[in-house]
Amino acid sequence: MTARRVVAFGGGHGLSASLRALRHCTPELDLDITAVVTVGDDGGSSGRLRAERGALPPGDLRQALVALAGDHPATRRSADLLQYRFAAPAAGAAADDSLAGHAVGNLVLCGLMELLGDPVAALDHAAAMLGAVGRVLPMSCQPVGIEAEVRGAVPERPDEVRTVRGQHQVAVTTGRVESLRLVPADPAACREAVAAVGAADWLIFGPGSWYTSVLPHLLVPELARAIVASPARRLVTLNLAAEKETLGLSVADHLAALRWYLPELRVDLVLADGKAVGEPEPVERAAESLGARLVLAPVAVLDGTPRHDPAALGAALVPVLGADR
Amino acid sequence: MTARRVVAFGGGHGLSASLRALRHCTPELDLDITAVVTVGDDGGSSGRLRAERGALPPGDLRQALVALAGDHPATRRSADLLQYRFAAPAAGAAADDSLAGHAVGNLVLCGLMELLGDPVAALDHAAAMLGAVGRVLPMSCQPVGIEAEVRGAVPERPDEVRTVRGQHQVAVTTGRVESLRLVPADPAACREAVAAVGAADWLIFGPGSWYTSVLPHLLVPELARAIVASPARRLVTLNLAAEKETLGLSVADHLAALRWYLPELRVDLVLADGKAVGEPEPVERAAESLGARLVLAPVAVLDGTPRHDPAALGAALVPVLGADR
Repeated sequence: MTARRVVAFGGGHGLSASLRALRHCTPELDLDITAVVTVGDDGGSSGRLRAERGALPPGDLRQALVALAGDHPATRRSADLLQYRFAAPAAGAAADDSLAGHAVGNLVLCGLMELLGDPVAALDHAAAMLGAVGRVLPMSCQPVGIEAEVRGAVPERPDEVRTVRGQHQVAVTTGRVESLRLVPADPAACREAVAAVGAADWLIFGPGSWYTSVLPHLLVPELARAIVASPARRLVTLNLAAEKETLGLSVADHLAALRWYLPELRVDLVLADGKAVGEPEPVERAAESLGARLVLAPVAVLDGTPRHDPAALGAALVPVLGADR
Repeated sequence: MTARRVVAFGGGHGLSASLRALRHCTPELDLDITAVVTVGDDGGSSGRLRAERGALPPGDLRQALVALAGDHPATRRSADLLQYRFAAPAAGAAADDSLAGHAVGNLVLCGLMELLGDPVAALDHAAAMLGAVGRVLPMSCQPVGIEAEVRGAVPERPDEVRTVRGQHQVAVTTGRVESLRLVPADPAACREAVAAVGAADWLIFGPGSWYTSVLPHLLVPELARAIVASPARRLVTLNLAAEKETLGLSVADHLAALRWYLPELRVDLVLADGKAVGEPEPVERAAESLGARLVLAPVAVLDGTPRHDPAALGAALVPVLGADR
């Protein structure tokens, strides 16, 4: 049997959870995993590398690579190295924080991209270094900006709509996002990502920060066209709790947002945690409006924090991804 | 036949040449290669990491690792990555040079040493990442200072003796080094390096910057004792040309310096390039005073620059290292 080709879209922690869950589907399913990652980050270490060196922000790419790193102790240690973040200088050393705050993997990816002049070749090499069980691609080979029109961005003026610029600022706004756009509006899609979408058996959206990690993929014109045209089945994995940027957005609203930004999008399945959904009917109806069936499964960690448990999410995915059409 | 265990001492480029030459001895000889590297560097990227983060200066360790990197295209590319040096930021990016000048490998080694808290474990992991055909160890697990009393350090005062502090300053002085010392004077030797010396079949000193890359090993008390006590045979590979720090030092003087700093040192063979030596008699006599026989061989590159050709040096080493005692 040939492997099922799965493309998972997202950004930071949500995509990591999705990828770790997909790993839990093996050995029951033979999966060929490709992660497609947003490149809008402008905060922290990634933001500094982007501003200082014009780099494709590496942080979310690094997280996806690490989520796919091989299980051998040596590759696990290499993954730990890429995740290691330089702390403030040790006491006694001269005060200078040129490295402080940078994750080693961000510097490695930045160096590889400069050395090879090709983000895809750089990511493929990094994946090989980690013995990764899948491929990581950027949604675009150029950094993009994320902007939103936000109502109540300034808490004292709840009715005023303001433009909020930058992924980080959009992610932390507690106002209501009324519209989202990329800058530039039509970044070139990563060619290999478009090809992976066209050849996929499954496309998986979410979980993740909806505005800053999930929806941006639908705003890259070529990628959106490839997603709509792909013969693949499509799955949306819903979040377990609203984040700052989606305060006031119900679970059903998350699905409506997908349709709002890509009206042609059809979805086959929506996977959600029963407890997070609560009363299922509005979510069922929102799923139906995308052409999808709602599947409820217990996919959260048991400690009560709103995080997906990779093993539980994987267990829920096995019958879904393994089903014949 | 068991492998011949070879320990090569040095610092930067000279040690790299020695290690590359040793690789050229295979497959004719089965060698188990260990590089022992000075940790006195205080210039450039290494100097910044040392000053800012208290790191063991990684540059020379990185060079040795890269010299031993495996031949597979993937490990060659990883070696290229470690050698890649961040240039000044691209035009258009914000001016900030926090990474400019750093080699990626220096940042990787610095991160690994902080993550693992053990330079030897860090170097072993980096060697594994590179598929290295040998082991790289520091002469000490703590950074050391190098200081020299230099006559004529200030060109206008040729007879005045001044203290020159720091490996970089000693390396570039054009005065005459009258004495050399480490700070602290008795750094702890790397335990694994001491063990490798005790188990070696051959110890190889040079080529390299004599005062800043070769002699410092003899100034680490435990390492010097291990070198003297080792049952291994000892080979000195002489330089092809004087560097700034050894201006005015004849080829024979280089050998005398070894004896000056470690009077108990006995040497079996001195390998030199006939053209660089010129009239062999004084060098022969200096070799004899260490107990050594002088072997002349054409080991320079053919373009006239004073660099060792790894293949030629390797060809000269095969009969030497392969000979029975």
